[in-house]
Amino acid sequence: MKILLDVSYLGTAYHGFQVQKNGVTVQEKLQDAVEALFGVRYALTGCSRTDSGVHAEHFFCTVEAGDRAETIPPAAFPKAINRFLPRDIAVNTAWLVPDSFHVRYDVARKTYVYRIWNAPCRSAFLSDRAYHLPRPLSVHRMQEGANALIGRHDFAGFMAAGSDVKDTVRTVFDCKVTREGDLVSVRICADGFLYNMVRIIVGTLIAISDGRMEPGEMPALIASRDRAKAGATAPPQGLYLSEVVYPDTVKEAFLS
Amino acid sequence: MKILLDVSYLGTAYHGFQVQKNGVTVQEKLQDAVEALFGVRYALTGCSRTDSGVHAEHFFCTVEAGDRAETIPPAAFPKAINRFLPRDIAVNTAWLVPDSFHVRYDVARKTYVYRIWNAPCRSAFLSDRAYHLPRPLSVHRMQEGANALIGRHDFAGFMAAGSDVKDTVRTVFDCKVTREGDLVSVRICADGFLYNMVRIIVGTLIAISDGRMEPGEMPALIASRDRAKAGATAPPQGLYLSEVVYPDTVKEAFLS
Repeated sequence: MKILLDVSYLGTAYHGFQVQKNGVTVQEKLQDAVEALFGVRYALTGCSRTDSGVHAEHFFCTVEAGDRAETIPPAAFPKAINRFLPRDIAVNTAWLVPDSFHVRYDVARKTYVYRIWNAPCRSAFLSDRAYHLPRPLSVHRMQEGANALIGRHDFAGFMAAGSDVKDTVRTVFDCKVTREGDLVSVRICADGFLYNMVRIIVGTLIAISDGRMEPGEMPALIASRDRAKAGATAPPQGLYLSEVVYPDTVKEAFLS
Repeated sequence: MKILLDVSYLGTAYHGFQVQKNGVTVQEKLQDAVEALFGVRYALTGCSRTDSGVHAEHFFCTVEAGDRAETIPPAAFPKAINRFLPRDIAVNTAWLVPDSFHVRYDVARKTYVYRIWNAPCRSAFLSDRAYHLPRPLSVHRMQEGANALIGRHDFAGFMAAGSDVKDTVRTVFDCKVTREGDLVSVRICADGFLYNMVRIIVGTLIAISDGRMEPGEMPALIASRDRAKAGATAPPQGLYLSEVVYPDTVKEAFLS
């Protein structure tokens, strides 16, 4: 068995999720905590990579703990491991899943939320938690542009350089732009995302809001597959991995 | 003239608002920023004191800048001063007010909000921004207890030791307990607050939720004026000064 974890983290202090040589990562902190708990260092697999400074409300990962997986009841696991985690990382829920489950390959869809603090003055509370954009955004124009993203498209033009992904076709199920007071949110749900795809989409929607691009240009922009034609990459601090959904068959089998 | 400022701050890094010898305070940071802007260190008066670790969504203070107050237009002031402030302090709005205005004595009413993260596991996002209470709270029982607070009462039993305030009579205009998902909020509006009054009220409402006290005991508890009978002082990280209101006559004269 593996232990499946639903984890939240504030990404500000971390060089992304995945272990790397040049900085502290969320994966490393989780592996340290698992080791403190079990006395053994187990492999840990994440549902995706997140960049430096990006946050997660619900990130899923598995601990390949083998026979030891069942020694702590899943209901007791979050409280047990949270004692060994820093304050900006928390395990919310744990399940036991069979070794056949793969936390990345089995994902059905993921939802990211990008938050923009859209007020003349910066927020004392959101400096690392939203992108501050002082000029007023047009949620209406952004939503018009976002509508063109929905469906199955080749999103090569919305992928940052440095990715070795070959198949750049993804299905976007939904993309909603909303405003609550000074906070503008872009919520996007898809079967998968290319490297920096959400941040490039948000940069493009901002360009549309500013009038540097028209909402009606979006289909041609997608069809061009040309990264140079899309908007700038919005900064990491506004991005949250918000939801990860596995297929009903998987959920019914062992996530209920 | 004085410059009146509406300021937000995350109090985690500060030993409260008011300047003191033993730690960095919000007032000190604001005075440093004013000095960086004007080249002169001016007196600065706050609308209240806040404790170490307490936050403010809208805190008001005046800068006694005399003739220099008018050299920067109020509309340009927030952006100008925010460059010299740390990321967890921000000036939202500035006004010019006559020297007769007093930012503390002229307050008509203030609203505090106390936030409780009421879920089995701690939140990775709210460690310094809400009080984590794992056992389920009864918002209904808390609201029943809160209702007894409304009106003009002697709140001596809800004042921490170490205050030199003589008149302990205050008028509570409203006290609402609400839940949004795992976040329980206590919002209390009064013409003034005694030292630690909100935190002691919240500790008492938690005791009522837990069944250690009954909502119906609240009137007798207030009448007793006995601090030992009220609940524990809830920790500072859940507390936010949320709103400060000046009388209509003041607002019409120079805050429009």
